[in-house]
Amino acid sequence: MSDIRLAILESGFGLGGWIPRALDASVQAPRFPGLKGDKLWMAEALVAAMEGIGRSSPNPAVGALLVQGGLVIGQGATETYGALHAERVAINSADVNALQGSTCYVTLEPCGGLNGKQPPCADALINAGITRVVVATNDPHIKAGGLGLTQLKNAGIEVESGCLAAEAKAWHFPFLAYQDKQSPIIIGKWAQTLDGHLADDDNHSQWISGSRSRRYTHWLRQKYDAIMVGVATVLHDKPRLTARESALPHARDPHKIIFDPSARLSSASAETLTALFDKTESLGPIVYWCTDPRTLTLPPVLLPYKDRIEHLPIVDTHNLAGLLAHLAAAHRKRFGRDLQSIFVEGGAQLLTLLMRADLLDACHIFVRAGILGGSRNRIGRLERGENLSLPLMQRTDYKLLTTLAIDDDVLIECVHRRYQFWS
Amino acid sequence: MSDIRLAILESGFGLGGWIPRALDASVQAPRFPGLKGDKLWMAEALVAAMEGIGRSSPNPAVGALLVQGGLVIGQGATETYGALHAERVAINSADVNALQGSTCYVTLEPCGGLNGKQPPCADALINAGITRVVVATNDPHIKAGGLGLTQLKNAGIEVESGCLAAEAKAWHFPFLAYQDKQSPIIIGKWAQTLDGHLADDDNHSQWISGSRSRRYTHWLRQKYDAIMVGVATVLHDKPRLTARESALPHARDPHKIIFDPSARLSSASAETLTALFDKTESLGPIVYWCTDPRTLTLPPVLLPYKDRIEHLPIVDTHNLAGLLAHLAAAHRKRFGRDLQSIFVEGGAQLLTLLMRADLLDACHIFVRAGILGGSRNRIGRLERGENLSLPLMQRTDYKLLTTLAIDDDVLIECVHRRYQFWS
Repeated sequence: MSDIRLAILESGFGLGGWIPRALDASVQAPRFPGLKGDKLWMAEALVAAMEGIGRSSPNPAVGALLVQGGLVIGQGATETYGALHAERVAINSADVNALQGSTCYVTLEPCGGLNGKQPPCADALINAGITRVVVATNDPHIKAGGLGLTQLKNAGIEVESGCLAAEAKAWHFPFLAYQDKQSPIIIGKWAQTLDGHLADDDNHSQWISGSRSRRYTHWLRQKYDAIMVGVATVLHDKPRLTARESALPHARDPHKIIFDPSARLSSASAETLTALFDKTESLGPIVYWCTDPRTLTLPPVLLPYKDRIEHLPIVDTHNLAGLLAHLAAAHRKRFGRDLQSIFVEGGAQLLTLLMRADLLDACHIFVRAGILGGSRNRIGRLERGENLSLPLMQRTDYKLLTTLAIDDDVLIECVHRRYQFWS
Repeated sequence: MSDIRLAILESGFGLGGWIPRALDASVQAPRFPGLKGDKLWMAEALVAAMEGIGRSSPNPAVGALLVQGGLVIGQGATETYGALHAERVAINSADVNALQGSTCYVTLEPCGGLNGKQPPCADALINAGITRVVVATNDPHIKAGGLGLTQLKNAGIEVESGCLAAEAKAWHFPFLAYQDKQSPIIIGKWAQTLDGHLADDDNHSQWISGSRSRRYTHWLRQKYDAIMVGVATVLHDKPRLTARESALPHARDPHKIIFDPSARLSSASAETLTALFDKTESLGPIVYWCTDPRTLTLPPVLLPYKDRIEHLPIVDTHNLAGLLAHLAAAHRKRFGRDLQSIFVEGGAQLLTLLMRADLLDACHIFVRAGILGGSRNRIGRLERGENLSLPLMQRTDYKLLTTLAIDDDVLIECVHRRYQFWS
């Protein structure tokens, strides 16, 4: 069968989890007609994990499923940062009498030893009387490091790992990649025509992709910690950059990062600013305004929003890696936690700058099978500055993870080849 | 389930049939874990149809499968033009004692009445004692027109139609679309990066896509009647344009059409011409050289191949539709049959000219998730002449049929929205 496989991941899985679930929380069984046995249950554990979207960061949104005699007796996803991990949520959801001798399917290696704010999950699994644990993928986290699996084995529990590993790695990608990189994972997202245009020459981009693709985008806005856009996108599209159209649960809206080297936000209309600062709760998402350091004080139009703005100087527009380091430090200072992932939604210029600097770790691309034409707003091409003309063998080339059709849009998900944990 | 479907066609089907089979003739069961009942058998009938690739044209390569008591008792595909149709091949392959009461799955409505060179298939099904016929899609052909189904019903046979209709329409696309259009169906094929480049600025295009994608391309070269390329592709790549790497069966190599308005083939190297005229049998594929009408006599380098060349003048490079009509007439005159389909393999300029003239009926596109850069060899953009800058709402936009991963390549198959028979 392996030779005839025409999808890299099992059908429907991608960086956003199982995509039918990302589009619709109420999708019913039978959900995986092509899967059976451990793979079927692990697929359901991955769907269970999706309930933890947004809330668990910077912890991974793990899913756990308990099965006894061919029936699901409990399930759970990691709760908010500092609260219960998925395994305990699943155990708490089950009838205690059914737990003895059950199997636990978990999307990421359970933690062992001392692991931050929670007692180790391995203890909970042992104490519950679970006799078999199936793990999708291991956890490279320095505090985990196989300790949980060793504890389980020492307690006589049968342990297997590697079941739907690639699908779990896709779902947990920002968490896993962050352990390697130790700086924010940058994920690009755009919709384009075959000739690479993200908008027409008058900057109209609404819409190249269809409404279900945008719904998936809003789901992803919950998954990642912050959204980054170029100021031109803010000025042209007046976006709110919230997850309002996402399938449930609706755990959070992301923080917002505006890349604005020439301080053009100072001249934004009231309508644009109202959209951008959508919510006014002091605990809501904040806006990182990355701009000209000469704009040391906030311009008058932005003063009403000063509690929601974090002002960051762009010292060198060519040093995007430096800017990202500044952003990470500012986030850690303000919120006491890592900024693990940044979702870059455009425009073409910002995405191309990041791509040229080799800073894109993964991409969600919606391709529409048509031609737009024009000379602007094209992926891979800068409107000012030097453009590349690479020999064929030196092209960028991401590792393909998923492709599937969402109505008339082709969704392509790919990751940078620097991440070795896929093989 | 319909709401969560993330493929337009059942998994793995496309314009080239069931793509795992197109890549490898020996692919074994279980081939369709997601299908059961009539759909499963019809999927197998479609795979059976693929044995008829190339040989049946301009007849459709129909497949028929006979099932009795849950077992396949016979199968067949349409033979060469003028010989047996699929239904009779299947009946002949079965044990005559098993036929009574069996079900026939057939990918296209069986012919009835008088239908050209063969007695009607409906008669054969009735005489064989078959009691149920499941049809994927109807046949708009003027000679068929529902007559076969009426004959079957009048004989007391249970008839159902519409089973895997979309998958069958994809396989039979050139045949079905030709009934609408009555001139050659033009199918584009190219491999591109995300920024729309088919080659680098030095015209290197070998290879943007991987070896399995090229294998699929060779399969398609059998499916379509002729391959068309621009002369620059001939001069740069020295292609043979044969189906030599195709999965079995290897029924034919296509005829070749060179679009060469400036008669550049006259200066081709001996190596280039040897590759292009690959085979020397007088019955092998011929080369339609579409070129400057001032080149009335063959230049000396082409004289050795004069029996294999059909010389066609390009009177007006802007009138591609006129050229296609000339080609169709020349083909009918030489071979006494319709030129039903032309497979255009590039380069970017010829494909873009056809797209601009709204002449592309369908496309097979291999997208590689990377960026090449450069200023030449890009789909949608002419290197000389006026370029379009369309408003977003006026972009070309094909109907998406299939997307799937072939190794690191994303295969996108789409058709022009003018064909209403999909809905």
